Amino acid sequence: MSIAEDVLAGRRYALSRVLTWIENDTAEGQEALRALFPHTGRAHLIGVTGAPGTGKSSLVNRMAYYYRHPPEGEPRRVAVVAVDPSSPFTGGAILGDRIRMRDLAGDSGVFIRSMASRGALGGLARTTAGVVQALDAAGFDLIFIETVGAGQAEVDIARLAHTTLVVEAPGLGDDVQAIKAGILEIADILVVNKADRPGAMATLRALTEMLKLAHPSQETIMHHGQRMTAAAGVRKADAPLWVPPVVKTVALNNEGMDDLAAAIARHRAHLEATGEWQVRDRVRLQTELENMLQEALMQHWRSRVPEGTYRRILEAVFTRRLAPADAVAQLLAADAPRPKNLPT
Amino acid sequence: MSIAEDVLAGRRYALSRVLTWIENDTAEGQEALRALFPHTGRAHLIGVTGAPGTGKSSLVNRMAYYYRHPPEGEPRRVAVVAVDPSSPFTGGAILGDRIRMRDLAGDSGVFIRSMASRGALGGLARTTAGVVQALDAAGFDLIFIETVGAGQAEVDIARLAHTTLVVEAPGLGDDVQAIKAGILEIADILVVNKADRPGAMATLRALTEMLKLAHPSQETIMHHGQRMTAAAGVRKADAPLWVPPVVKTVALNNEGMDDLAAAIARHRAHLEATGEWQVRDRVRLQTELENMLQEALMQHWRSRVPEGTYRRILEAVFTRRLAPADAVAQLLAADAPRPKNLPT
Repeated sequence: MSIAEDVLAGRRYALSRVLTWIENDTAEGQEALRALFPHTGRAHLIGVTGAPGTGKSSLVNRMAYYYRHPPEGEPRRVAVVAVDPSSPFTGGAILGDRIRMRDLAGDSGVFIRSMASRGALGGLARTTAGVVQALDAAGFDLIFIETVGAGQAEVDIARLAHTTLVVEAPGLGDDVQAIKAGILEIADILVVNKADRPGAMATLRALTEMLKLAHPSQETIMHHGQRMTAAAGVRKADAPLWVPPVVKTVALNNEGMDDLAAAIARHRAHLEATGEWQVRDRVRLQTELENMLQEALMQHWRSRVPEGTYRRILEAVFTRRLAPADAVAQLLAADAPRPKNLPT
Repeated sequence: MSIAEDVLAGRRYALSRVLTWIENDTAEGQEALRALFPHTGRAHLIGVTGAPGTGKSSLVNRMAYYYRHPPEGEPRRVAVVAVDPSSPFTGGAILGDRIRMRDLAGDSGVFIRSMASRGALGGLARTTAGVVQALDAAGFDLIFIETVGAGQAEVDIARLAHTTLVVEAPGLGDDVQAIKAGILEIADILVVNKADRPGAMATLRALTEMLKLAHPSQETIMHHGQRMTAAAGVRKADAPLWVPPVVKTVALNNEGMDDLAAAIARHRAHLEATGEWQVRDRVRLQTELENMLQEALMQHWRSRVPEGTYRRILEAVFTRRLAPADAVAQLLAADAPRPKNLPT
């Protein structure tokens, strides 16, 4: 029995091992992903982003608990991928795990994985994609992809989910207002966490106003970016538009979890009814593929250009004799296939 | 007279135009950068990063004013590049500008430019690099590169400066603690802004403790990443180590600007004495070059692979018949030069 079959059969130990391989980008990891990939596509991927201090980790924690102990219906299997692109080390991520452990320890229907950036940013996005695929194949119904902040890297990771939650909290200062303007565009559901704090009503009102200003239109649905066009034909032209709801929660007191779960369920129904579930799936896969391709092209190029040539051109840039744009032209030319059988 | 010569002669209007060209990635912009590049390398590049709500914009504003009206010595020419990778639009960046205008409007020794992400992240990093080069050539003595948050994208941008300021503020919640662990590694100078607020002493103590734990060693100096090795030989082995100082400021009351300016001056002297000024310069240029190269390789590849082939392989991935890793292998093969003159 292969390790991929063990993962498909729900064996935790096998899953942990495969995830470690994927994180370390080993050949075994790639082999396992190949075997698991046909079994992906069923999980509901939920991105969670927002400024530091909004209580995203606690919120995801409580939501995982909620889906494990729903007031009605069957418990759902929940995975959490906590991505910390700001930490080249695992400090922050580990801290997050400790907080989570208390409630969810020992529950085999929950799987939590922390990921810190190891080196390149593209690497983290690719690794996250692989980890999510493995969890999807392993049969988790909901996969929360939680990021530590609200920078571009985090937004890029969160927006590739089917449903993106943007978490806000009252009283985080003026800079946060500036961030909202940009991040609001990617929210499918807005969460005002810590809603028992002073200023919660003001935050709620401000967000509702900004949403009204945004005038939901075709563009709101098309926000996932340039690449959307490729697969956009899938969406039905007369489908209803999604107006992002604003949900109040107090994660620490376990308040609002039912409202948030209801909003998530409504969004999923909307995605399926409009065909956008498939659109987002395709956009995500295409982005993953292009990230991998970009890395492969760079590696390929490096293997073909002599180190000495590269060093010489670099040195000319360092000493300001060669502008970067000209250096790139020279580096590309250094790789050009030499025509053979030509008269010399 | 070319526009590059106008920029070198200090003409603001020419500089503005060139910056717009660079942002829009036009051929004129590339041409201007080519002409300006030999004149770069003199400015002191200062990255400013930290969580939202720490008051980075106000701090940079006050520092610019301080350098324009120093208690002793000549005024310095100051440029500010405010980078907002979280905003695909310019909302946040524009807000920042309005706040700044009041103090610095009409001063020809100050230049402020806001940049929001337009599309790709690599694009923003490259564009920022070009803008900084143009400002450097235009003769600004200090260039502050301020980012809106503390995600990986922001950190990547800020760390490419000669001196990286990490700004903290009291009472921003627990998530911020988690961020600190990662971001502390890149700080050359730690700033506790809003130091008149409750909790300032606690923040100061916590940071000082974390710095002690970090045990400044060779690694502290080598933190700028993997690529440092290439140029690392420049650093003298017996050079003194830099222990990041913690500076208290209250930007809104103009307090602590002298301490911060002194710390920045000490860091510059340290960089020059140890040879690390040059190391960081080279690391930055190499990173810029590799980002440009990566984009060029992708464009080059796209121009050579038929759209139909690409679509067919994508579709196989969408329908889970082909794993992404295998798709990348097929896409690379699709570009392989067909051997000619072979027996068929």
